[in-house]
Amino acid sequence: MTTVVLVGTLDTKGGEYAFLADRIREHGVEVLLVDAGIVGEPLATPDVTREEVAAAAGADVAALAAAGDRGAAVETMARGAASVVEGLYAEGRLDAIGGLGGSGGSALVTHAMRALPIGVPKLMVSTVASGDTTPYVGSVDVTMMYSVVDIAGINRVSARIIANAAGALAGMAKVTLPELGEEKPIVVASMFGVTTAAVTTARERLEELGYEVLVFHQTGAGGGSMEKLLASGFAVGSLDVTTTEFCDQVAGGVLAAVPERLESAGAAGLPQVVSLGALDMVNFGPRDTVPERYADRNLYVHNPTITLMRTTPDECREIARLVARKLNAANGPTVLFIPLRGVSAIATEGQPFHDPMADEALFSTLREELDTAKVEVHELELDVNDEAFALAMANRLHELLEARP
Amino acid sequence: MTTVVLVGTLDTKGGEYAFLADRIREHGVEVLLVDAGIVGEPLATPDVTREEVAAAAGADVAALAAAGDRGAAVETMARGAASVVEGLYAEGRLDAIGGLGGSGGSALVTHAMRALPIGVPKLMVSTVASGDTTPYVGSVDVTMMYSVVDIAGINRVSARIIANAAGALAGMAKVTLPELGEEKPIVVASMFGVTTAAVTTARERLEELGYEVLVFHQTGAGGGSMEKLLASGFAVGSLDVTTTEFCDQVAGGVLAAVPERLESAGAAGLPQVVSLGALDMVNFGPRDTVPERYADRNLYVHNPTITLMRTTPDECREIARLVARKLNAANGPTVLFIPLRGVSAIATEGQPFHDPMADEALFSTLREELDTAKVEVHELELDVNDEAFALAMANRLHELLEARP
Repeated sequence: MTTVVLVGTLDTKGGEYAFLADRIREHGVEVLLVDAGIVGEPLATPDVTREEVAAAAGADVAALAAAGDRGAAVETMARGAASVVEGLYAEGRLDAIGGLGGSGGSALVTHAMRALPIGVPKLMVSTVASGDTTPYVGSVDVTMMYSVVDIAGINRVSARIIANAAGALAGMAKVTLPELGEEKPIVVASMFGVTTAAVTTARERLEELGYEVLVFHQTGAGGGSMEKLLASGFAVGSLDVTTTEFCDQVAGGVLAAVPERLESAGAAGLPQVVSLGALDMVNFGPRDTVPERYADRNLYVHNPTITLMRTTPDECREIARLVARKLNAANGPTVLFIPLRGVSAIATEGQPFHDPMADEALFSTLREELDTAKVEVHELELDVNDEAFALAMANRLHELLEARP
Repeated sequence: MTTVVLVGTLDTKGGEYAFLADRIREHGVEVLLVDAGIVGEPLATPDVTREEVAAAAGADVAALAAAGDRGAAVETMARGAASVVEGLYAEGRLDAIGGLGGSGGSALVTHAMRALPIGVPKLMVSTVASGDTTPYVGSVDVTMMYSVVDIAGINRVSARIIANAAGALAGMAKVTLPELGEEKPIVVASMFGVTTAAVTTARERLEELGYEVLVFHQTGAGGGSMEKLLASGFAVGSLDVTTTEFCDQVAGGVLAAVPERLESAGAAGLPQVVSLGALDMVNFGPRDTVPERYADRNLYVHNPTITLMRTTPDECREIARLVARKLNAANGPTVLFIPLRGVSAIATEGQPFHDPMADEALFSTLREELDTAKVEVHELELDVNDEAFALAMANRLHELLEARP
């Protein structure tokens, strides 16, 4: 039976969840209701009770409520709900997942959604869907439907929105995947505007060799999506040309790396070929949004909405230690390519971010910190976008993939 | 026949749109393809051609392409697409609308989506759905599905995401609205944390009197949603207690008013009772995000994520002129209630934002600027959250609604 799982706080939103569940059933789809509320009695009858949800996180509802720490209780119920829906999915009892709520409910329910693989349909009806959705969507396919009105009772507006959500959930739950013909092995690749030439060359080479290449723009979320795909077994290897998100992590830019960046391939034992693409730049929005403390830095106004800042030798050393630590921890074949003539299209000689001191800080710290018993290092007298550099990376990754047992 | 309308740039994304259309048809739903591309030849056969889309905006495709101004061309095609889908909806040939794209495509397609009434299903598959969605969602129910990978070709990931989108669009297109029983007249009301007492009292009074009250948090998008509902004929009147978004508009806060704020009821000739709720505060995020130029202002750290700034007499005068100009332009019965003892819960005597000079600047400028032949003004020696103040507003709105022809 096709089933939509709904996760929600049935103590405060029970009536709205019951309305959503009824609408879904009208489409001939089964509903499983998971209660993640803690305060009052559930206003709708759950199929998985809050006691079971708390237990899935190793906790006890009564104790959570008695402790009076709302933040901790919500966090625990979110973990429990994630564990419950992972279990339902593994048992084949979850074809889509949905929820509705304000900012608190959205945080709780989407936490559970993000535990499921990419491709499993996820829909959150939310009061906070028109704004920054990063905390809710993260790196995966959580679909956000703006509720327009508060989710507090069924009125003529909320009835229409929730009925639409029911249609979307039922429709997605019924989806069967189309045949795509021959399934080529997937390789992921990380790209930025200033490493486009490198990634394009490498991608074309890998496609020639029989791979399908998925390219991820390094926007913070983009790097996160790439890690998520590596962790969920979609891909066989990683061509991580562009590790630029570490600059934003270290210097407070707007496209910072997710915590698991550059770790998933290694954790899964997958072959990875890594480079230092765009480690010369920290990203900010319009010029007037660059923090005051950076007023005297080498800033480059790329366009009215993007301002770039050259990384310093100190920042480069910190980034190098971060990269080395992550690569040293990898369980799979790991190769680093160092482009001695420049890490981006604007870091080569004569370009605005050309800075041999900063580059040397980056390269020498890597030489000191990398465990060469585990990480194979290639230093090439080329810049990252040189065709020979890109081909060398692609070919080395192919060799590693061919050498797999 | 149930129909999903797809709007897109078929010159660059024709293959992906054809794949989406095929998946939708598998659900037994018709597809109409609207081409908003301008550069190359369409890669899929449109039902509404780019020539027709351009013509709907009073333009010519060849001339647009020849002019070489990409921004202007995209803007024109967005207007044309909006006009086309409004026409299809009016003819009963649009049950849901969908699209897919990057930031440029998302801007174009959601512009067309936002032309449709709230409640008409709208789904955008987008590379920019994990981030600030305000430019795409705005004040309406545009649902955003994060594409995870670039929308460039059909691979194993994009195939799953697009198949899910097809299921969601087909499912939403098939939705029939549930019967809700007696349909009470709808009144909208504007609220903020610091005017909750006022709005709750007024809402309960209006519910007693037989209305359904929809409450909108004044988050920028919230005020916009309220205006959109007033403009689209859902509501019979407006209880606009909380006009605080003008503070953020004037002083550069994060919850600024949309341009049409406080205009839709007046434009539609609907009765409106307005007050000055929370005109004492400009909203910012965490304390360290408050612009440097405001370092010496009266700042109030509400919690780690919200910092409030007291408006000055100068800002209050500017806000008053703005409010007066909008109310003077109204075509319907318009009443302003002035709470002489304080405009928010923290602006009364003894509270951190109590500031008689700023209040006097606000009130006296309103007295000077309002056209009292058109706007009825009540000055009460009460604060905005006083029960008597809230009841007076609710009762006056009821009288105006009763007096309608």
